Amino acid sequence: MEAITKESIANWFKGLQDSICHSLEELDGDASFEEDLWDRPEGGGGRSRVIKNGNLIEKGGVNFSAVSGPTPEKILQALKLPEAEFFATGVSIVLHPNNPWVPIIHMNVRYFEMSNGIWWFGGGIDLTPHYVIPELARNFHQHLKNACDKHDSNFYPKFKAWADDYFFVKHRDETRGIGGIFFDRLSDSDGRSKNQQWQFVKDVGNTFVPAYTDAVSELRNKSFTEEDKKWQKLRRGRYVEFNLVHDKGTKFGLDTNGRTESILMSLPPEANWEYSHTPETTLQKQTLESLKKGIDWIQ
Amino acid sequence: MEAITKESIANWFKGLQDSICHSLEELDGDASFEEDLWDRPEGGGGRSRVIKNGNLIEKGGVNFSAVSGPTPEKILQALKLPEAEFFATGVSIVLHPNNPWVPIIHMNVRYFEMSNGIWWFGGGIDLTPHYVIPELARNFHQHLKNACDKHDSNFYPKFKAWADDYFFVKHRDETRGIGGIFFDRLSDSDGRSKNQQWQFVKDVGNTFVPAYTDAVSELRNKSFTEEDKKWQKLRRGRYVEFNLVHDKGTKFGLDTNGRTESILMSLPPEANWEYSHTPETTLQKQTLESLKKGIDWIQ
Repeated sequence: MEAITKESIANWFKGLQDSICHSLEELDGDASFEEDLWDRPEGGGGRSRVIKNGNLIEKGGVNFSAVSGPTPEKILQALKLPEAEFFATGVSIVLHPNNPWVPIIHMNVRYFEMSNGIWWFGGGIDLTPHYVIPELARNFHQHLKNACDKHDSNFYPKFKAWADDYFFVKHRDETRGIGGIFFDRLSDSDGRSKNQQWQFVKDVGNTFVPAYTDAVSELRNKSFTEEDKKWQKLRRGRYVEFNLVHDKGTKFGLDTNGRTESILMSLPPEANWEYSHTPETTLQKQTLESLKKGIDWIQ
Repeated sequence: MEAITKESIANWFKGLQDSICHSLEELDGDASFEEDLWDRPEGGGGRSRVIKNGNLIEKGGVNFSAVSGPTPEKILQALKLPEAEFFATGVSIVLHPNNPWVPIIHMNVRYFEMSNGIWWFGGGIDLTPHYVIPELARNFHQHLKNACDKHDSNFYPKFKAWADDYFFVKHRDETRGIGGIFFDRLSDSDGRSKNQQWQFVKDVGNTFVPAYTDAVSELRNKSFTEEDKKWQKLRRGRYVEFNLVHDKGTKFGLDTNGRTESILMSLPPEANWEYSHTPETTLQKQTLESLKKGIDWIQ
């Protein structure tokens, strides 16, 4: 077995970005990704890839980065550690579809290490349907559970609950969508080797394409009305609220002078706000009732 | 002279809300405000008034509140004070116009006191034109300077610089608009009596209608293109970013379990995001170049 170095992890993530972009272009059938290469003044850089006005995807990004340098003060404070160098690499994805029946999807897989020997993996995949359809929610969660169960039968329940807690729009008292899995600081402190954790993270990364392909297949050609489009834009407004008010990754990126355009690629092409909007259809009402923590989507 | 009690301040703010709503309905010429009365479980409540789809105003709010109860833990920590009761009252306004030539405006005037005798006033008015037109910026700032100069010749330069610092979208390295004035914690510690501070705050409140009336009068009937509308929505996106990422008032409101719909009435009806958008016209470029701190708009 090859040694798991930060270089080998970053290289695998680069390959993941390549293969996901390739699959998404095929799935979209029309638009292609455009790439921006960027350097971070303090060390490292990234490959931001964005897609827009596609057949399926209205606006999306699949970003890779591998950054390094002195550890940001905020991390040192949180960890109560003296100065050290850090290295962080990962792939982040957010896709906003045209069709309101198709869900928004987000994935992140990442690796972090410091010159003092500390390292961990983190990541997750979660789905934000504008309209929640239980059967499709079950199918999505089944993909995630399958990926988890290959590694540890405790992973899915633990990381599913973690996603419920993390992707929560507190000021609206609703979850961002139907959740998924979220995990952070996976190291060898819980009795699993670095290789075991890495295999799990790789499987999560590899789950993105089949899970998303299934999530869109039945819905992408479903016809929609102006009312559906309006509802989509209101739900996108909540997505903006979560990302800008609550998302720790976004906040950390902006606080530490990250590349703003890459961080905010998660924002939708168009979002609406209406004062005290109330749902107008049964499906809209059911959707809001489904935005709760603790729902067992698989059963 | 009448004693300046929290009741008399709240009553004056209520009257200000009434007169501003009346003036704005006249100015709009079509839409009317709708009112929501709300109670705060811990004490007090408010009158939220919203207007939409008007002739001039696409979405706006003029909110009054007077809330009380145990001081939120966050304030006690910031002030390093033991438990006390608090009372806070104020009027907050944000108006998003239909026409991209017409600026977004914001005003807030507020009073805060605690049972331990601490009290202060705060507030401000600032303008966010989608297109910056220097002559109109000068006129707007002249209104604010006139209101300030009646009270203290140091106020305008001090509070203008404070607005530049406060209404700053750090992660974009741009000001929210052309600024205005911003002030906080005006008490009697700087040698001005409570009555003097209160007269100033009242004058700020009374400046809103004439300043806004002037700001819209020449522009509201100016014709606009699809390109102008698109630019407006992108600029509204920045407004969302400021309010959700940086605005301390919004953050404090959401953190302390305030009324979400009233706090987020500041968000635009519709906002867009485009990856790495670059300005396409001379006026768009000039606008971005004008979003800097320290510009002397009056000269």
